[in-house]
Amino acid sequence: MNFSVFDHQMMAKAIKLAEKGRFTTHPNPNVGCVITQGETIVGHGYHIRAGGPHAEVHALAMAGEQAKSATAYVTLEPCSHYGRTPPCAKGLIEAGVARVICAMQDPNPSVSGNGIAMLKEAGIEVQVGLLEADAERINRPFLKKMRTGMPWVQLKMAASLDGKTALENGNSQWITSALARADVQGYRAQAGAILSTSKTVIDDNASLNVRLDELAEDVRVHYPAGEVRQPLRVILDRRQRLTSDLRLFATSGEILVVSEQEKQDGSIDSAVELPQLLANLASQHNINHIWVEAGATLAASFIEQGLVDELIVYLAPKIMGSDAQSLINLTGLTEMDQAIALNIEQLTQVGPDIKLVATFKSSK
Amino acid sequence: MNFSVFDHQMMAKAIKLAEKGRFTTHPNPNVGCVITQGETIVGHGYHIRAGGPHAEVHALAMAGEQAKSATAYVTLEPCSHYGRTPPCAKGLIEAGVARVICAMQDPNPSVSGNGIAMLKEAGIEVQVGLLEADAERINRPFLKKMRTGMPWVQLKMAASLDGKTALENGNSQWITSALARADVQGYRAQAGAILSTSKTVIDDNASLNVRLDELAEDVRVHYPAGEVRQPLRVILDRRQRLTSDLRLFATSGEILVVSEQEKQDGSIDSAVELPQLLANLASQHNINHIWVEAGATLAASFIEQGLVDELIVYLAPKIMGSDAQSLINLTGLTEMDQAIALNIEQLTQVGPDIKLVATFKSSK
Repeated sequence: MNFSVFDHQMMAKAIKLAEKGRFTTHPNPNVGCVITQGETIVGHGYHIRAGGPHAEVHALAMAGEQAKSATAYVTLEPCSHYGRTPPCAKGLIEAGVARVICAMQDPNPSVSGNGIAMLKEAGIEVQVGLLEADAERINRPFLKKMRTGMPWVQLKMAASLDGKTALENGNSQWITSALARADVQGYRAQAGAILSTSKTVIDDNASLNVRLDELAEDVRVHYPAGEVRQPLRVILDRRQRLTSDLRLFATSGEILVVSEQEKQDGSIDSAVELPQLLANLASQHNINHIWVEAGATLAASFIEQGLVDELIVYLAPKIMGSDAQSLINLTGLTEMDQAIALNIEQLTQVGPDIKLVATFKSSK
Repeated sequence: MNFSVFDHQMMAKAIKLAEKGRFTTHPNPNVGCVITQGETIVGHGYHIRAGGPHAEVHALAMAGEQAKSATAYVTLEPCSHYGRTPPCAKGLIEAGVARVICAMQDPNPSVSGNGIAMLKEAGIEVQVGLLEADAERINRPFLKKMRTGMPWVQLKMAASLDGKTALENGNSQWITSALARADVQGYRAQAGAILSTSKTVIDDNASLNVRLDELAEDVRVHYPAGEVRQPLRVILDRRQRLTSDLRLFATSGEILVVSEQEKQDGSIDSAVELPQLLANLASQHNINHIWVEAGATLAASFIEQGLVDELIVYLAPKIMGSDAQSLINLTGLTEMDQAIALNIEQLTQVGPDIKLVATFKSSK
């Protein structure tokens, strides 16, 4: 395929536009669209929120008559099916667009090549694959769910530099800085669901919601004012310890409490079957993207079962001591090559703290 | 004081020159010198190794007749005493230099203003304090010893991301990457002494020496080929467990074994009095700069006693588990504000590993 520098620039712009929707489009993908006549941009838009118009609709409305014989750059294959809005492929055809460049095909089984086929049948020149890796990156949760039926899982951990999360007596607030906690708010705001345990909810009296006033300034500017989308809060409460007086229940947003009878062997891992729970959240609650904030035991279960796609770790510049509580309740390694190996994808400072984003070397 | 942009540039150059000596001048300070006529550099040099000529001697030799009525930029007050070389203040006077700018006064009691006074008495214009903070930074070990009688201590630690240094069964090689170990070689090469314990020497059969072929390329270019300066190796061997077949003794360089009768209460911390040991290494062995590579117990002693000036931590992107061995054997914290607080001075990636340089918030 042959794309010009201008083509690259326009698709990069469309991807930047798409990302603006990252707090509000869930469970839909982020999509951006740019329409050009020659080397002039005549229309652009992005999908702002689920249920609202798609990116192409915004861009075509802006272009108006100038869409005729124009080129459209779209970060994802235009849809071909009637959902909450009419198919975008039809809209592009009716507007008289001459050429459509898609960054990637939509793996959604109800689209998956049909949008491209519709455009081609109408005589439109279609090219696919420009900046595909970037387009993949902005929709990892949506794409994973479409391809595997499982949600994309981020696990958040916070510890001291010596890998501790609480003192021996349980004291822990606050290990990381207010800036790190604001960063966490930004992740929560992008998730479809926040998953935690009754222990965390009770110990910290945590509300696990998105608080607009705690979001970092650069996040807030992308957030439609007064329209906070609260992710579904999924609380594992095996022993039914949650009580209605907790702060969790005094905040708006949906809550799903997952409780089960304790097994006879008293085990925790098996009490809640995590892979099944994740699959159910995807299929029954339409959740692409899960943000896990939990203690050392649940973190270990997620990691040992290969359920984590990305690890977000905040390390506070503190030493809490060897009798303090460990980050991950994982035991029994006897050889160094059994250690769980990570790739550091990002390493930054957030205020006084260290932040790293990592993936697993043998990621499943 | 009024310094021109040109003055700043020349002193910055002198500081860069001084740093070239960082592997070889110990226990002397790093010193650089630039001599200018108008805006032309006519001489420059740096102190290369203890016993060799001082920076000013190199620069004056290069300038020759052009030193007359020139300006000399020196990173440290010129010496005024006869040591292994004649006083540099005398050299500058005899060469006919008109103006001398020093980044800082030399705290060495046998200089400490005398060099400046000698120059002034000879009618030379002297200014002190240009880029003083930078000049301080390149000679932290020398300056600390001159001011306090104690050496400057760097503590190296290496752990997994969850703060572990060995599996429960003791397996530990290798946690960090070959690149991180090459970085450690660069630190060893700058130190006056490497301090460790017989446990580390025996467990790892460690030679704790500087190996030219393992130094990073950017370090090796500054190292005079074939002239590796081996720091004094100080091994704490309380129970006299070292045996002559260890690799330590098969490598060149001096070794100081510190052993004592075990105390009746069997304690480790008190068996070797660290502050006294450090003071002795400074006063009796002329050591400015100590690089500590040790296990969790000695690391905890150094930290608890406030003896560490800078912490160098390598974190490998691995999870070793909660039953693995902790980075620092420190116990008994009950409140979060008792946690040892650090400032992160540098955060980088060294190959796959994370490296951080930190100081203590309540550094003594």
